[in-house]
Amino acid sequence: MSANAAPLERLIESFGKLPGIGRKGAQRLAYQVLSMDKTEAMAFAQAIVDAHTKLHRCKVCQNFTDGEVCSICADGARDHSVICVVESPRDVGAFERTREYRGEYHVLHGLISPMDGVGADQLTIKELLARLKNETVREVIMATNPTVEGEATALYLARLIKPLGVKVSRLAYGLPVGGSLEYADPTTLGRSLVSRGEL
Amino acid sequence: MSANAAPLERLIESFGKLPGIGRKGAQRLAYQVLSMDKTEAMAFAQAIVDAHTKLHRCKVCQNFTDGEVCSICADGARDHSVICVVESPRDVGAFERTREYRGEYHVLHGLISPMDGVGADQLTIKELLARLKNETVREVIMATNPTVEGEATALYLARLIKPLGVKVSRLAYGLPVGGSLEYADPTTLGRSLVSRGEL
Repeated sequence: MSANAAPLERLIESFGKLPGIGRKGAQRLAYQVLSMDKTEAMAFAQAIVDAHTKLHRCKVCQNFTDGEVCSICADGARDHSVICVVESPRDVGAFERTREYRGEYHVLHGLISPMDGVGADQLTIKELLARLKNETVREVIMATNPTVEGEATALYLARLIKPLGVKVSRLAYGLPVGGSLEYADPTTLGRSLVSRGEL
Repeated sequence: MSANAAPLERLIESFGKLPGIGRKGAQRLAYQVLSMDKTEAMAFAQAIVDAHTKLHRCKVCQNFTDGEVCSICADGARDHSVICVVESPRDVGAFERTREYRGEYHVLHGLISPMDGVGADQLTIKELLARLKNETVREVIMATNPTVEGEATALYLARLIKPLGVKVSRLAYGLPVGGSLEYADPTTLGRSLVSRGEL
């Protein structure tokens, strides 16, 4: 039997359900919540409730939003003719931080992965194709991860989208900026050679 | 401006307030909460609320409990004549897992640390001394961390407790079990030599 009181044990278990957090990490976090002042802890609990009750998918791009349409899709100043297709809402944030991209997004909420039992019908592919039919989209940028699943999903989508007369592009492979040639894996280095540009 | 909807941003901020969790980690955790099913997320929020409303300090040992007295202090089968003094409730769990200790605990809820502005009066020292006066305690084991603050607190308490006619002991220093001599720091190795035992 654990010496922990039941409410503490339940909090530890809740933290432990988060992927990447083991029993020890969950314990540490639970004690840290206990040492927060009460207002802060209540705000934390309310934030979890709010995230689940107030957030839903944007009816256009499927990113999380508390409105009907997310702030990016609702922004008239953005380029509605380009859609960047990403695996998850996190990736939207990553692109926004580059400050390089002014187009729209489409969040798949996963990648095709037969090993994990995720098929094309569990992703938001229907919604993407509907957007391509209704909107005047020029280009779809496949921005899934450079992994087996990311590649497979990108290729699968490209096959579906090209017949609609929309240009499909893929993120460039190459050396990470600030990285060292020495530490680049052979595949990445090979790709950076093949895709070399003129100076 | 962040592209995140306000409820998501608030959840990320709440996670970010936990020590050791940066902005990226907080984002990852927030999205993981969003991908939980609703029942699980509500249970998580409730666990935080419960931990703060139902838990308080055991009136004897100052560990967290949901009763008036914690399960260890209430356990008649434990040895009430020995008190193990620890910094935090986490340490109680660590000793319980050894299954070696059948005495009681006293949780200081901190260590004396002038650098961090923590003085003796912010710890539960008053409560410890009251226990020593009212109960028939034979021995107090100082089980604070082997750090500067842990040592200072142990020495400070020993000075207060010894005049009461109670034996004060300290955890042994030495090589970690299963560790390698080669990797032991000189101070630890020196201590293990000084405290060597007969075979």
